[in-house]
Amino acid sequence: MFEQKIKELGIEVPEAPKPLAAYIPVIRTGNLVLTAGQLPMQDGELKYKGKTGFDVTTDQAQEAAKMCALNCLSVIKSEIGSLDLIKRIVKLAVFVNSADGFTDQPKVANGASEFIVQIFGDSGKHVRAAVGVNELPIDAAVEIEMIVEV
Amino acid sequence: MFEQKIKELGIEVPEAPKPLAAYIPVIRTGNLVLTAGQLPMQDGELKYKGKTGFDVTTDQAQEAAKMCALNCLSVIKSEIGSLDLIKRIVKLAVFVNSADGFTDQPKVANGASEFIVQIFGDSGKHVRAAVGVNELPIDAAVEIEMIVEV
Amino acid sequence: MFEQKIKELGIEVPEAPKPLAAYIPVIRTGNLVLTAGQLPMQDGELKYKGKTGFDVTTDQAQEAAKMCALNCLSVIKSEIGSLDLIKRIVKLAVFVNSADGFTDQPKVANGASEFIVQIFGDSGKHVRAAVGVNELPIDAAVEIEMIVEV
Repeated sequence: MFEQKIKELGIEVPEAPKPLAAYIPVIRTGNLVLTAGQLPMQDGELKYKGKTGFDVTTDQAQEAAKMCALNCLSVIKSEIGSLDLIKRIVKLAVFVNSADGFTDQPKVANGASEFIVQIFGDSGKHVRAAVGVNELPIDAAVEIEMIVEV
Repeated sequence: MFEQKIKELGIEVPEAPKPLAAYIPVIRTGNLVLTAGQLPMQDGELKYKGKTGFDVTTDQAQEAAKMCALNCLSVIKSEIGSLDLIKRIVKLAVFVNSADGFTDQPKVANGASEFIVQIFGDSGKHVRAAVGVNELPIDAAVEIEMIVEV
Repeated sequence: MFEQKIKELGIEVPEAPKPLAAYIPVIRTGNLVLTAGQLPMQDGELKYKGKTGFDVTTDQAQEAAKMCALNCLSVIKSEIGSLDLIKRIVKLAVFVNSADGFTDQPKVANGASEFIVQIFGDSGKHVRAAVGVNELPIDAAVEIEMIVEV
């Protein structure tokens, strides 16, 4: 059903990145699956870089957030096999690389939240924390962690 | 018992804000209830705005943290019906909108932690992470997420 | 086994700090044990202070991250008695006090992740979020929270 919906939306879930040395991109504990922080990477390349409100616009940061969310789904799929096994999306933690004075983190985070709800419907309604930070790994514009229930 | 204690303390738990479009303010998974990040809102208005150590004092930020914690209780109550059903407060994540050089995040977070322990006693003793960030949604002074066990 | 490995590595797990007034350093809920945010303290003293990329080098911040991770283990041990009871390390959240322009948070976080994997092997492979922040409590260089499954 969710896999079908993703297909209908013309979305392709990318291959999950190879597990890194010291940490892994996804873990299951009980009925919860937690992802590592995901960046707006596509085909191994960072697509959105710098501070929202200075280097990237809010619109671009929303796209970045959507890309992070898709990468979260990608690593979750690599762990559980099919996204159809997701019972519900529990939580998104959204860190926005923010220029001084940028306070529209919720708008940025909506890029991820609306994408998730588009796919998962009522099962996609999650809690969320969106905060601004002054720096992110490799100067990514956004970083997102996801928790889902299976 | 906790509801009674809240009454004795002269605290009024506000109405939970209406669920927003793309995400929800509270979710239950198993025995855990998680809130979305709560801001120091009162009657639909942001009460504490700007950076602690510059725009707001540490004392004001403590009040802001207490208000965030109360809003966490409000959304939890909307999910589970009565705060008496809380077995224990598990965790607070406290994000403090911090001016450069402000390093008293734990003091700010105590505004929330002490309020919680005042109500819940030993069941209110929680773990906590308090960090500074350079920006928060709508320039809020503090943002807090809560996890409780029911 | 893990306790033995720690001994072999010549590591001494320090005494857990005394519980503070309003919050506690560690909590168990179901099969999960969560720590409060831990700082690079040793013998009650903050060992790494200031912003990575300005006040401290990346190498020093890695040492700080390792120290935070050790303090996480210390408080977990105080809760469960023996680190041998850990089934797996689930998650690290790594907050790096970052100078403007410092984007090597993953390298800093590796100081903690590699230390954990050195002790726990495959059971130590965890998910991780590493973000930069502009300020941390008492000007600590790094703050880390840990979740483990027992």
